[in-house]
Amino acid sequence: MAVDGTDENNLEQGIYTKDAARLGKNGRRRRSLSDLSSSQKCGAWASHFQRLFVSFIGADWIYLMLLGFIMAVLSFTVDIFVDLFTEAHSWIYNLADSHVVLQYLAWVTYSLFLMCFAAGFANMMSIQATGSGIPETKTSLRGVMLQEYFTFRTLVSKVISLTCVLGSELPVGKEGPFVHVGSVCAALLCRFMSLFSGIYKNKARNEEMLTVGCAVGISCCFAAPIGGALFSLEVTSMFFVARNYWRGFLSATFGAFIFRLLPVWNRQEETLTALYATKYRLDFPFDLYELPIFAAMGILCGFGGAFFVYLYGKISLFVKKQKAKNSFLMKNCFLYSALVSVLISTLTFPPGFGQFMGGRLTKKDSLISFFDNRTWSNHGIVADFDNDDHLATWKHPQANVFIILSVFIIMKFWMSALSITLPIPCGSFVPIFVIGAAFGRLVGEGLATLFPDGFNVDGHIYHIVPGAYAVIGAAALAAGVTHTISTGVIMMELTGQINYTLPILISVILANMVSQSLQPSIYDTAIRIKKLPYLPMLSWGHREKYNIYVEDFMKRDVRYITLNSTYRDIIKILRSGNLKTLPLVKSAESMLLLGSVERVQLLGLLTQRMQHLREDNASTMPVRYKVRFQVRHGEYECVYMVKPLKFCIMMWPVDEEEITSVYDSGLNLKKFFCSRPEIEAMEDDSDAEDDTILLEIEEWEEQQLVEQVTFSSCKIDPAPFQLVEHTSLHKTHTMFSVLNLDYAYVTSIGRLIGAVSLKELREAIEGCTPADGVRLRPVLSTFRDRGVRGTMTETIALHQLLEHQISR
Amino acid sequence: MAVDGTDENNLEQGIYTKDAARLGKNGRRRRSLSDLSSSQKCGAWASHFQRLFVSFIGADWIYLMLLGFIMAVLSFTVDIFVDLFTEAHSWIYNLADSHVVLQYLAWVTYSLFLMCFAAGFANMMSIQATGSGIPETKTSLRGVMLQEYFTFRTLVSKVISLTCVLGSELPVGKEGPFVHVGSVCAALLCRFMSLFSGIYKNKARNEEMLTVGCAVGISCCFAAPIGGALFSLEVTSMFFVARNYWRGFLSATFGAFIFRLLPVWNRQEETLTALYATKYRLDFPFDLYELPIFAAMGILCGFGGAFFVYLYGKISLFVKKQKAKNSFLMKNCFLYSALVSVLISTLTFPPGFGQFMGGRLTKKDSLISFFDNRTWSNHGIVADFDNDDHLATWKHPQANVFIILSVFIIMKFWMSALSITLPIPCGSFVPIFVIGAAFGRLVGEGLATLFPDGFNVDGHIYHIVPGAYAVIGAAALAAGVTHTISTGVIMMELTGQINYTLPILISVILANMVSQSLQPSIYDTAIRIKKLPYLPMLSWGHREKYNIYVEDFMKRDVRYITLNSTYRDIIKILRSGNLKTLPLVKSAESMLLLGSVERVQLLGLLTQRMQHLREDNASTMPVRYKVRFQVRHGEYECVYMVKPLKFCIMMWPVDEEEITSVYDSGLNLKKFFCSRPEIEAMEDDSDAEDDTILLEIEEWEEQQLVEQVTFSSCKIDPAPFQLVEHTSLHKTHTMFSVLNLDYAYVTSIGRLIGAVSLKELREAIEGCTPADGVRLRPVLSTFRDRGVRGTMTETIALHQLLEHQISR
Repeated sequence: MAVDGTDENNLEQGIYTKDAARLGKNGRRRRSLSDLSSSQKCGAWASHFQRLFVSFIGADWIYLMLLGFIMAVLSFTVDIFVDLFTEAHSWIYNLADSHVVLQYLAWVTYSLFLMCFAAGFANMMSIQATGSGIPETKTSLRGVMLQEYFTFRTLVSKVISLTCVLGSELPVGKEGPFVHVGSVCAALLCRFMSLFSGIYKNKARNEEMLTVGCAVGISCCFAAPIGGALFSLEVTSMFFVARNYWRGFLSATFGAFIFRLLPVWNRQEETLTALYATKYRLDFPFDLYELPIFAAMGILCGFGGAFFVYLYGKISLFVKKQKAKNSFLMKNCFLYSALVSVLISTLTFPPGFGQFMGGRLTKKDSLISFFDNRTWSNHGIVADFDNDDHLATWKHPQANVFIILSVFIIMKFWMSALSITLPIPCGSFVPIFVIGAAFGRLVGEGLATLFPDGFNVDGHIYHIVPGAYAVIGAAALAAGVTHTISTGVIMMELTGQINYTLPILISVILANMVSQSLQPSIYDTAIRIKKLPYLPMLSWGHREKYNIYVEDFMKRDVRYITLNSTYRDIIKILRSGNLKTLPLVKSAESMLLLGSVERVQLLGLLTQRMQHLREDNASTMPVRYKVRFQVRHGEYECVYMVKPLKFCIMMWPVDEEEITSVYDSGLNLKKFFCSRPEIEAMEDDSDAEDDTILLEIEEWEEQQLVEQVTFSSCKIDPAPFQLVEHTSLHKTHTMFSVLNLDYAYVTSIGRLIGAVSLKELREAIEGCTPADGVRLRPVLSTFRDRGVRGTMTETIALHQLLEHQISR
Repeated sequence: MAVDGTDENNLEQGIYTKDAARLGKNGRRRRSLSDLSSSQKCGAWASHFQRLFVSFIGADWIYLMLLGFIMAVLSFTVDIFVDLFTEAHSWIYNLADSHVVLQYLAWVTYSLFLMCFAAGFANMMSIQATGSGIPETKTSLRGVMLQEYFTFRTLVSKVISLTCVLGSELPVGKEGPFVHVGSVCAALLCRFMSLFSGIYKNKARNEEMLTVGCAVGISCCFAAPIGGALFSLEVTSMFFVARNYWRGFLSATFGAFIFRLLPVWNRQEETLTALYATKYRLDFPFDLYELPIFAAMGILCGFGGAFFVYLYGKISLFVKKQKAKNSFLMKNCFLYSALVSVLISTLTFPPGFGQFMGGRLTKKDSLISFFDNRTWSNHGIVADFDNDDHLATWKHPQANVFIILSVFIIMKFWMSALSITLPIPCGSFVPIFVIGAAFGRLVGEGLATLFPDGFNVDGHIYHIVPGAYAVIGAAALAAGVTHTISTGVIMMELTGQINYTLPILISVILANMVSQSLQPSIYDTAIRIKKLPYLPMLSWGHREKYNIYVEDFMKRDVRYITLNSTYRDIIKILRSGNLKTLPLVKSAESMLLLGSVERVQLLGLLTQRMQHLREDNASTMPVRYKVRFQVRHGEYECVYMVKPLKFCIMMWPVDEEEITSVYDSGLNLKKFFCSRPEIEAMEDDSDAEDDTILLEIEEWEEQQLVEQVTFSSCKIDPAPFQLVEHTSLHKTHTMFSVLNLDYAYVTSIGRLIGAVSLKELREAIEGCTPADGVRLRPVLSTFRDRGVRGTMTETIALHQLLEHQISR
């Protein structure tokens, strides 16, 4: 997964080319579609109807509801299968109760089998499916689109192997993968909708939809639309735009609605309620004296969260180092997963050590029992306690409930940190929730034992509610790990009670404060470990540390086109790099920046030029290489082309970009055409293969190529984003972040002197940070800053500027 | 309140000057403070302690908690006084029960008196205190800081008159004014904190704090931290920055905590609960069949909300027109308020028409009764129904509950729309809540009558909960009026139940969709009516409508300084305008933009120059005008100055800006010094008043002024924000919005050709919009857009560009 400098470069450039190719393709396809409709001429009514249909399909709410629906169904299906897997596990385990060894084998082998299948499937089908997916989504949303993470293949691989992993009862969660699945679904749905409506071809819009996908992912895991929408904003965005906020809410609400509706239709539940509905008393949720305890829990959870992130980072780096050293481990991706699976299932084996840590319970069962309304430590009060299978697990003849809970917390803590480093789809959110809830329950039970009579307020007796402590602990620990506030909101929606708003928010904010001052969030840590091309926030400290200007880190060797460029120049430039847009300057001497031209536009210019040549000079052209194609749908069309194939003139809708890339890679065009499935038969005129003719062609081409380009039909962006050479790193960073730029040109009094892309900016920032990698900055640290706009008034002494002017 | 073109201009320029003055003042004060500490030389420990103290005070959480605390105390105090006023009203009303006319007089006069006092106090103390304040806050946050709205005077005026208005039981709310009060508190607290820590002098940061103030305002009204934070973001921001989100949450949580803690300390309540805590059943909140009804309610509330905004707009415009025509009405601000007060209190008079519309109940009582758990329409079920004073109001011997509720809704609807147009502090949120709740209760009671047996689900009988309908109706109608989703969250926090998340969100989203397609939000309507300098969103439709470039609307007559500028030029420029920053170009011929210089820096240059002259040429200077001051604190200092006062050299810490403004306004400097309270005695050297000497000075000054400025000690921003002349209106708008710019320079190949400020941009946008004022665009309409970045790739045909190049 490691992406070093050069790879990154290729990666980015590859993406650029792909984007351009897609753009070209879509542009062409739309044209051919409209051609079709106009050729049919079914009258004004049909076209009116078509327009209506397109605008209907183009309406966002259709898209958002579809996305919500798909995700809800996916989430529900995964849940059903996970339940089936768990039941099957339980059934096999109970079947083998004749002997403890047999039972152990059944217990371990089942998990092992599912784990190996999941790891193998994910690694073979699509390696991008492993891990949480939130770091990759975050990176993609920041500008560097990791295209391979958003394919149908990844989706299938992720969903299926996630189901198996969850079924194997490893302490990993569903939320991280579902954020990824949500954004993949959003991306795929955009691609699908673009068949009907043009507005889904907009790249920026589609990136915004990824945020919506994240919100729906969370919302469909926890049935928490508000929390989901907020969580997605907190985790994925640096700057929120109002439009995402609305879209996220709409889609997340519909998703959560369908997700909770499905169990009702499936006769599992009576009506729409919270996922882990609690029934704590409404009249007196907590006493004032409990508030300091909640605050202390928040602080402890902050430390715990930071330690969890630290542990995860250490384990990840250790595993990575071992893999790099040991080629055997690297080749056998199963082995590591299998080892961990056996270790964990051995430890949780219920008749063994598992009896001291609630080994039999799944994550869901544990959460339900932790959030339970009843108090465990004074068993006598509740009569039906022993009938409850879940609660009975926490009652052990040799050990009291405090010991069991403590063992559970300690064991699950390292198990979770270990599990999420495996090469499988896995999230850290739910296991953290469970550990936090256990911690809260421990504190709550302790208090209930200390104060068995509860509080006497104005004659009313109110007992302590340990379940509420579990709720608060879960929210605080999750906040400490993810560095978000919305975990509190998710918790309220998950339990269906908002009585504890203030304690939850207080402990969540305190946990955030503590953990952010100690460690980056788990997602930022993952980004750092995986070396994803993410633009980091500038690390804190004095601004003077970043005392460099854009001229110090910009790329000086910029490819450009001038008003005097010939067609040859353009071909040369198009072949030499894969930049999406090219700057247009007045002349190579003056370098005055006039605007920028998209690559696609230039390709269009070339095609136009050749169409023009073909029409005008059909007779003067020395020879033509003629190919006839039999296209599958019965149509019969011709491609004429000059060879060696610098230009190609076609009537067949293959886009120009595709042809150019064939040349670039040195392939034979004939071969390329033969490989296309649409072409069934092909005959070509072989007399053009002669050497002398080739020379002749070469000469003719040379003549045609030296002509100056006429840009008159080409669309030019007259105001590409420009920076002055003295713009500081801080200001550049802010502009790139806020405007979500990919690149900017650097000018000095109108003359183009360089360009900055995300890559250069990232390197410049990393160059300013400590050697141990990018120092990611906690969000709360912005409390100590002077505001965004403060970074925009950097000043230098004028004499520097004057010297600069004189030396020029 | 109407601000036309020229006034706006002055307003803005006034603000610029004030800002600069403040900056200068602060800068000076800090310097003198540090001088003090260094002169004391109390050793390293003291300075270390001071640093610690400053960094402690500078920490944001101190500020945020203080803000929360102050707002909570304010809100609680206002509530207490409002309760007192209401009780007194009730007491007087009951006292006068001997005769109905007496009672009527008591009822009406009390309200009338409070209203007149409120209107008079607000108008005399600070006219800015009237109205909701949200539109003004929104405008200030967008960039045009309306300084006079954020003074201590406004705060006092607003809080006191708001208390009286609420006490008079007019159907207006507390939330809008409290958003304003919150942001005023935030601004004042920033000013206070800047005495201790320098970071509170940053303007951008202080503007961000205004958003926090809004969040705290809402949070302390409703004890709804999450809803408050979200509402403030939705209402005030176009683009959210992550840092505000955190700050808002922290401050709002602490504010809500204190706000709910105070009643506990005051022995009013037992513990921290929701403000309008409800106790609906947790196990089966609603049936699936009820969902379509909730959705229909959302749609109806959308229409209702849009109609309310329409009604408000019509009444406001009518009143405005009448005021403009009728000078009598304009002069007597009481009259209109008094008339409305008498009208409304006559209609609500309990023994009169008020008996058919729950006239006796305050807004709070009405809300409590609407949210009640019990069903009104089948009275027999609940035994203690008649003992409840609030509920009994809705029972009338002649009219059933449906008629009373309908009358209540219709009457309150127009009364609220009318009341919020009065020149008093008033919000629309709570009255809308009440009307929405009444509508919901009406629907709920209707259903309960239709289905008296409730639902039978799996053998359990579940009755309809009309209170829940009231909750949903309130949220949906508020959403329809304010165009926000967070009203749903506020509602959940207000009632302390989250069971109805999905119905609330569904109806809120539907209400938003309907009302946004019909009318702008109530805040945008108010901005339009008050003609506030708000940068509107571009209205929807085809982008081609805005086919103008920045060169078409920029200000071409830009004042600038060159590298060859003399001191005289600078003084001239400083006097001629009040721009905060001035562009620095290479020469008047080349106009190459080198950077920008702040006004304060230039003033500093002038002072420096004079200090330099004083030290070097003390003997050659022809004459000095000498003044001796006796300063109050016993210090004795001198001001030497050359007269006529083009320069002033002082040892006394009056800042330069202040002196300059004295000259600009034509005041006598001597008079000015005499008017300062610090100066107790003053003697001056009168022989300088001679005409010949004055001429001599004039000559000497002329010599000094023609010298070229050396910018070496002056700080220059080398990269001010620049736009190319072909930047489109859309792109300019996006950049101004996202980067929150005040102004930008327009360059053509490096040459400064103009400048754009918010004012020009606003005019350009308004010029493109229909004649009936700015067409504000609903937020949900962004669903139909192509994304922000889509607006950044406008293109023009090249031949235009070429022609442009040739013509030059």
